[in-house]
Amino acid sequence: MAQFINKKENAVTEAIDGVLRSSGGALARLDGYPHIRVILRTDWDKSRVALVSGGGSGHEPAHAGFVGAGMLTAAVCGDVFASPSVDAVLAGILTVTGPAGCLLIVKNYTGDRLNFGLAAERARAFGLKVNMVVVDDDIALPDLPQPRGLAGTLLVHKIAGALAEGGASLDNVTAGAARVIAGVKSLGMSLDTCTVPGSPKENRIAPGRAELGLGIHGEAGVEQVDYTGAHAAIQTVAARLSDVMGDGPHVVLLNNLGGASVLEMSILANELLTSPLAGQLSHIIGPGALMTSLDMRGFSISVYPLGDEDCALLAAPAGPRAWPGCVAVAPVAVVDLPDGLSPVPPIPSEHAQTAAVLTRCCRILIEAEADLNALDAKSGDGDTGSTLAGAARALVGALDRLPLADHTQLFRAIGQELSQTMGGSSGVLLAIFFTAAGDAASGGLPLVESLKAGLARMQMIGGAQAGDRTMIDALQPALDALDQGLAPAAQAARAGATRTASMVKAKAGRASYLNAEQLQGHVDPGAEAVARLFERLSV
Amino acid sequence: MAQFINKKENAVTEAIDGVLRSSGGALARLDGYPHIRVILRTDWDKSRVALVSGGGSGHEPAHAGFVGAGMLTAAVCGDVFASPSVDAVLAGILTVTGPAGCLLIVKNYTGDRLNFGLAAERARAFGLKVNMVVVDDDIALPDLPQPRGLAGTLLVHKIAGALAEGGASLDNVTAGAARVIAGVKSLGMSLDTCTVPGSPKENRIAPGRAELGLGIHGEAGVEQVDYTGAHAAIQTVAARLSDVMGDGPHVVLLNNLGGASVLEMSILANELLTSPLAGQLSHIIGPGALMTSLDMRGFSISVYPLGDEDCALLAAPAGPRAWPGCVAVAPVAVVDLPDGLSPVPPIPSEHAQTAAVLTRCCRILIEAEADLNALDAKSGDGDTGSTLAGAARALVGALDRLPLADHTQLFRAIGQELSQTMGGSSGVLLAIFFTAAGDAASGGLPLVESLKAGLARMQMIGGAQAGDRTMIDALQPALDALDQGLAPAAQAARAGATRTASMVKAKAGRASYLNAEQLQGHVDPGAEAVARLFERLSV
Repeated sequence: MAQFINKKENAVTEAIDGVLRSSGGALARLDGYPHIRVILRTDWDKSRVALVSGGGSGHEPAHAGFVGAGMLTAAVCGDVFASPSVDAVLAGILTVTGPAGCLLIVKNYTGDRLNFGLAAERARAFGLKVNMVVVDDDIALPDLPQPRGLAGTLLVHKIAGALAEGGASLDNVTAGAARVIAGVKSLGMSLDTCTVPGSPKENRIAPGRAELGLGIHGEAGVEQVDYTGAHAAIQTVAARLSDVMGDGPHVVLLNNLGGASVLEMSILANELLTSPLAGQLSHIIGPGALMTSLDMRGFSISVYPLGDEDCALLAAPAGPRAWPGCVAVAPVAVVDLPDGLSPVPPIPSEHAQTAAVLTRCCRILIEAEADLNALDAKSGDGDTGSTLAGAARALVGALDRLPLADHTQLFRAIGQELSQTMGGSSGVLLAIFFTAAGDAASGGLPLVESLKAGLARMQMIGGAQAGDRTMIDALQPALDALDQGLAPAAQAARAGATRTASMVKAKAGRASYLNAEQLQGHVDPGAEAVARLFERLSV
Repeated sequence: MAQFINKKENAVTEAIDGVLRSSGGALARLDGYPHIRVILRTDWDKSRVALVSGGGSGHEPAHAGFVGAGMLTAAVCGDVFASPSVDAVLAGILTVTGPAGCLLIVKNYTGDRLNFGLAAERARAFGLKVNMVVVDDDIALPDLPQPRGLAGTLLVHKIAGALAEGGASLDNVTAGAARVIAGVKSLGMSLDTCTVPGSPKENRIAPGRAELGLGIHGEAGVEQVDYTGAHAAIQTVAARLSDVMGDGPHVVLLNNLGGASVLEMSILANELLTSPLAGQLSHIIGPGALMTSLDMRGFSISVYPLGDEDCALLAAPAGPRAWPGCVAVAPVAVVDLPDGLSPVPPIPSEHAQTAAVLTRCCRILIEAEADLNALDAKSGDGDTGSTLAGAARALVGALDRLPLADHTQLFRAIGQELSQTMGGSSGVLLAIFFTAAGDAASGGLPLVESLKAGLARMQMIGGAQAGDRTMIDALQPALDALDQGLAPAAQAARAGATRTASMVKAKAGRASYLNAEQLQGHVDPGAEAVARLFERLSV
């Protein structure tokens, strides 16, 4: 699959420059591209303990995205999935370390340990105070000789970062980092491998299977398991974590390995926070893409026992916008539905003349059913006649429930009836037409002006204008002429309907997907219905 | 491809509950699942204009993720890519609207317009002040009759939200929203289609092609274009946007359609901010997944001309953590490399006895080359002898550059030489050993104690302990016995090396990937080198 990169050799430096350009000036980099890729806080004054982390790239937003107040002072970035050089790490240390010293936070991979370790030795030869901690939160295998560093590293960044920002000594910052490392446990699951720039994608996971206990470098998980959905996936990972967790409240970090959608991550969050683990999860970080494996469609869960001090350190403000915050797990708060969803039925009233007109309108539409269907079949799905006739029949049946003696209420009631009985867009549009007309009438407008207000609202909501080959092409001229009487209105409606036959491009509704040849010569069925209604009423 | 969902029918409600549970109590929902899915701010008091948006799901974090102070008051969520019902929208409006009124922000899709529109009519019948704006920022085709609402909608949410939060009237909030809608333009490109839950994935984009001018519902773009990389992709989209942009500074929103990795999005940001458009881009929002199309590997760019008022409104604080902020576009700030990366060469000095011992050590290792290689071939890649011999030859050649008369400086200098001439992990580890030993000696420790300090540091960095089948199994007992003389040290080293032959599980280094049978009976070559060195020195 193609990716949004250019030459793979430049992917890391280009990505870092993208981060810098969109950082609002909060980040800078060291000179020395392409070999030295070190990202720095621009507001750093060496007055406190510096925190330097990094490693291979491909884990974005880690690590450059977590450089900023309250987290990292600098990130040293290697190539994709490859450790940075000793010189690059040393350059970072020398640039940011002041009298308070520097803590290196390294994930447990041989290359990172050695290169950061030797850089630390060299920096010490300059008289700098440099400590180093190694994060090994992976629990993929109970007896792993070298547990990998995974997304739990972010808890180290945040807690050590908050300590350093608060002015703690190097020993205290180091002790805080060591405390997190001793307690944090992580496990991941993925449905697919990742796409390493410039390499073909490996297809080792069969449909219906998932990999459990994976790292963040595209390497295979320690086992493959059946995959039956989000629920079982979380149950499996939660059970493994539960085996190594102590009692008491924990914070959980839910990490997107890069390729899961935001929708999926929210579903996983829901599963996690309703899993058997939930009783022990007092706070959550994420879900979010924090320590990714490029575009891997997978997740990891990290848990850490949470004391009051660490809770405050995790909640402390942090500059990097990639940090999603740490919040208390909340139950789903449900608010009662408001009153008014079930509309109050109108108070029926009798008015013989109105009943007669309304019945006549409905009969006209019922009689036109077959003709309108035939017309619609030429440009649509042939149901305009049936849709209108069905609504008309329902309205006739509802006559004795309607407030016939009150035009204002009648319009609203007709709108309500149509919204319940008439399907599709046209039902909603006519409901809007009558409801808005009723509102206008209740505001004191005369009948014709109220109908025009209904039309205006229908046009605003529906988006169709005169000339767009809809019922409006007949209805608008009819209403404009209605003050002069029904006969002029009928003539105007017919003229408007006839014009639709020469409109070669529909701009709204289903007919907008047809081409000119399919439309030419056929009157729009909605406009025909309006014209026929006014014609029959006027005779 | 499998996804992290359960039953597709429940995907939206489960995802919403996941958002609520991880919201820290900031969000609630209305009763009425599964048909009514309305997410609310829990801190809402109806004192200001309410903002209600929403539409089909599948665009996460939009819209639920943008509910909060300074943005939306409520989000109404339909099924994936389907409009919510009139009742659901009405429920949202009735719940949050107070005397100040309510603005509906609707993306330009027929279903959304009609359902939000009719809900607005019904809400007005209750005497509520409800306005509605329709976002149509899509520029995929110059003469689109109904331009779609895309990620530009988020600018409307933010600017109208900041106005409402500041206490503006409904008319002023509506005018602000209308101003954004009139000015914002968006265009997207994708390399792949999206995976709709429960539906097979469509494969309509051939390798080497991309779709340009796409919506956010998986529908095809208006055209397919050749895809040659991130640079050309941004150039194409930027050129289209440039055609419809006026003069002056703009804010740009770079949106991940869901499936692009964070690395890719940063590369796209770099391309965007160095494109011909860059001169007009004063501020940027993102990159980030803001208005997604499930897991589509694509991006969209939205531009909006930026006046001072809108700039302040975009920068105003916002509660929703999905909002990435709006920052000034920054040039890449480059900081000079620190001094000290090129190590200061030691000042050479003469010391005949030291030169003799050092030379003898090197000769021992050079003579052992073939034996050690043969031993390593049984558990590794057969180069231990050559690696050590090569370093020894280099050290002999460097004798007249070394500070032979000063042990402290000599250790450091040897460390420096080894880090430059000896490849692989063992080169780094021995460099760490000698550098740390030099540091210890400079701190006043005697020779043997300094060497022990070097060993401790090497173990800390490398992670190997006694019993892990490495050179440490010989080196540690040798150093422990060295105070008693060379002969006891040699005996201890030999005993330690011999023990490695019965260590069935290597825990560090390359041999850790071999099984017990492959290792049994063979002495570790690193331990053998140490034993042989002490034995030959002691005779």
